[in-house]
Amino acid sequence: MARNTKVQADHNAPAVTQTLARFVATHPSKGWSDAVEHEAHRTLLNWVGCAVGAARHDSAEAALGALKMLQPSPQAAVLGRSDRVDMAGAALVNGITSHTFDFDDTHLKTIIHPAGPVASAVLALAEGMGASGRQVIDALVLGIDVSCRVGNMMYPEHYDRGWHITGSTGTLGAAAGCARLLGLAETPTAMALGIAASQPIGMREQFGTMTKPFHPGGAARAGLLSALLARNGFTASPRAIEAARGYAQTVSTKCDWKEITDQLGERFEISFNTYKPFACGIVIHPSIDACVQLRSRGVKAEDVERLELRVHSLVLELTGKKEPQDGLQGKFSVYHGCAAGLIFGQAGEGEYEDAIVNRADVVALRRKVVATVDDSIDEASADVVATLKDGRKEHVFVKHAIGSLERPMTDANLEAKFHGLADAVIGAGRASRLIAECWRLGSAANVSALVQAACP
Amino acid sequence: MARNTKVQADHNAPAVTQTLARFVATHPSKGWSDAVEHEAHRTLLNWVGCAVGAARHDSAEAALGALKMLQPSPQAAVLGRSDRVDMAGAALVNGITSHTFDFDDTHLKTIIHPAGPVASAVLALAEGMGASGRQVIDALVLGIDVSCRVGNMMYPEHYDRGWHITGSTGTLGAAAGCARLLGLAETPTAMALGIAASQPIGMREQFGTMTKPFHPGGAARAGLLSALLARNGFTASPRAIEAARGYAQTVSTKCDWKEITDQLGERFEISFNTYKPFACGIVIHPSIDACVQLRSRGVKAEDVERLELRVHSLVLELTGKKEPQDGLQGKFSVYHGCAAGLIFGQAGEGEYEDAIVNRADVVALRRKVVATVDDSIDEASADVVATLKDGRKEHVFVKHAIGSLERPMTDANLEAKFHGLADAVIGAGRASRLIAECWRLGSAANVSALVQAACP
Repeated sequence: MARNTKVQADHNAPAVTQTLARFVATHPSKGWSDAVEHEAHRTLLNWVGCAVGAARHDSAEAALGALKMLQPSPQAAVLGRSDRVDMAGAALVNGITSHTFDFDDTHLKTIIHPAGPVASAVLALAEGMGASGRQVIDALVLGIDVSCRVGNMMYPEHYDRGWHITGSTGTLGAAAGCARLLGLAETPTAMALGIAASQPIGMREQFGTMTKPFHPGGAARAGLLSALLARNGFTASPRAIEAARGYAQTVSTKCDWKEITDQLGERFEISFNTYKPFACGIVIHPSIDACVQLRSRGVKAEDVERLELRVHSLVLELTGKKEPQDGLQGKFSVYHGCAAGLIFGQAGEGEYEDAIVNRADVVALRRKVVATVDDSIDEASADVVATLKDGRKEHVFVKHAIGSLERPMTDANLEAKFHGLADAVIGAGRASRLIAECWRLGSAANVSALVQAACP
Repeated sequence: MARNTKVQADHNAPAVTQTLARFVATHPSKGWSDAVEHEAHRTLLNWVGCAVGAARHDSAEAALGALKMLQPSPQAAVLGRSDRVDMAGAALVNGITSHTFDFDDTHLKTIIHPAGPVASAVLALAEGMGASGRQVIDALVLGIDVSCRVGNMMYPEHYDRGWHITGSTGTLGAAAGCARLLGLAETPTAMALGIAASQPIGMREQFGTMTKPFHPGGAARAGLLSALLARNGFTASPRAIEAARGYAQTVSTKCDWKEITDQLGERFEISFNTYKPFACGIVIHPSIDACVQLRSRGVKAEDVERLELRVHSLVLELTGKKEPQDGLQGKFSVYHGCAAGLIFGQAGEGEYEDAIVNRADVVALRRKVVATVDDSIDEASADVVATLKDGRKEHVFVKHAIGSLERPMTDANLEAKFHGLADAVIGAGRASRLIAECWRLGSAANVSALVQAACP
């Protein structure tokens, strides 16, 4: 490939590194609405559930194997396991597990999964230093604000270019959260952001491998180390994010600086965080949602003659696999999604196990799904008509699926999802205790009760 | 800034990740000429000297302070100190110290400083796992070949865009060296390269701060972890370097794949490694060299009436500071460089201390330097005429300065440079032992003797 044109440098970019550092260091504790405060707990709860759920995955075993070669000191917990490693190691592994099932949170404007890098770094550091629950929630809100604002500044060009935006902005969010937790003043906070700015992590080519969930884990680990370095006097450029040869202009040609500065401290990006109800690509969600609604109206799988589904063409383009052979293929089958929704009333990681995808009643029902493309229907919607054996018809139109910004998961939905992930790993009783500890973290003296509930 | 054109993706890029993995995993031990083998020892010696020399620098203190908050286990040495930290921490700190004085090695085609990332990772892992000296030298040659070939593929576009190419290619070199040291087969070696490919480190905006030397240190740490992850079964894309949304096409628009594949295993990039004789920017080196030669002809500072210097315009543009006030300013003064060369016969870190830059005889001599621009003289050359108080004139023309590929540092030069860095930190006797251990490492049973000599 020939040498391409040079990227045009902006030498007059505003001092956004300093702006973010001042915000992170000086914004008052709980300086936001009750809705933001509650969203922080929802983000935390959902993240803990995802991490616990994947605690025994091969990627967790491999990462712990690597860390144990470094003989880490037992400073912080790996959620869902009895292993304890150093704080940076805990940030790494919890970041990996929480993203392993692709079931974590999503900031829809940027498709950043913000909790993975930020919560993983913040919880590990909080445990190691004995921080209060209040400090953790503050650090979480502020760290996520930094990641997502930086993402807003560069999306979509940065993502289109090949960066996995969760990891490439996540080091900054993790560094911001940890700097806040360490109580750093504005200048060392800018240094923490500056050190982190030299470490964007993640290429999209890694999707489908363990290195995809490594990205939030690696970002958590790098951000935590950046804050510890700044805490000890390590220096970086105070214009590391915005300078002509700084982070943003090196990894993106779109640099819309006002996405960082507009309404900073007034509008919080965590308000736009969403949680996946189903363990598959988001385009299938409206169809599954419709079938779950049919089930709650009393429609039973054995009574169904035919399921007629009308969806946008993108749905079949991305997830049109009619006869999936295993769980992974099931994730790319709107047919399996509909069958799972109607039979189980949910489509969590358990409904994508190989045995379920091949179970006779599931196979039989998905063969009754007739999908038709209709581009007058939005990508975010689905229209489903069930024709029953007795001739009756039931019709459900889903405009916005559960889990969207317009129809967010309720707290009860989040708890049910949490149990679906965590019960098999730590047991239902312990999972209920852990849920309670997440909801009350803002007023907890420290993170010990949460961590103890999370680790068998 | 508006959204720019998309980067054109090359979906048919050759499988260079696999090519490099096979090379690193299967190339025979010592499968190169004696000249390459000797260059490996020179690279090692020079790197150890730089690391020991900066062992007490503020950046080393700050980095160790951060690591100690992680309570690392004492697996590996920090060169020049008695501290022991875990292998990843040792890779980090030795990578930082070896680049702190900007006095390390340079692969001139790409201006990569290759030993920082690779040697730092390899030595720490070798100590932790008890590898032989032979294994270390093999890993060093192969790791540096990977870094520099990847650099050749992307230089200069990648560097122009803002990446500090030492760190952004260094994770791959460090991962390659560590994979080799761990004895990984071709497929897990490709995984190690793949995990590392998601972690390019370093923006040029950081030049002038501690985060610049953090780049090779961070790359060493990230590369070592990548290899440990691969050793434990962690997966990555087998096309992580070359794929359309992989490393190279995300961080560079120039991707000249044949720079990776041509003469792989025949031409070794370490053959083109050079070592700085003077602790300042390379454009001043010919002028200093000329003054050192005047001194060895018997010219004494107190006998000099006038020093007439003719150089390319770039020299005065970059280093034309006539009255430097401290050591850092001294590095941007060809006048100080000439004075140091004539008075001391060298210009190491010691000749850039504040006290030296302000010493009366040094100030007096540099005021006698008259610099003239002459663009008929190459940037790599300098013409110096000393007029003595008795009317005699001495003329030296330097075509290529000492330390260039055309006039490389001799082994004796390297040893003198090493003493200049290390004696003040570990004492001259210990420095001599350490030099001997570097030269004989290829046949040492392990790295213990080297490490013991390096650490007081």
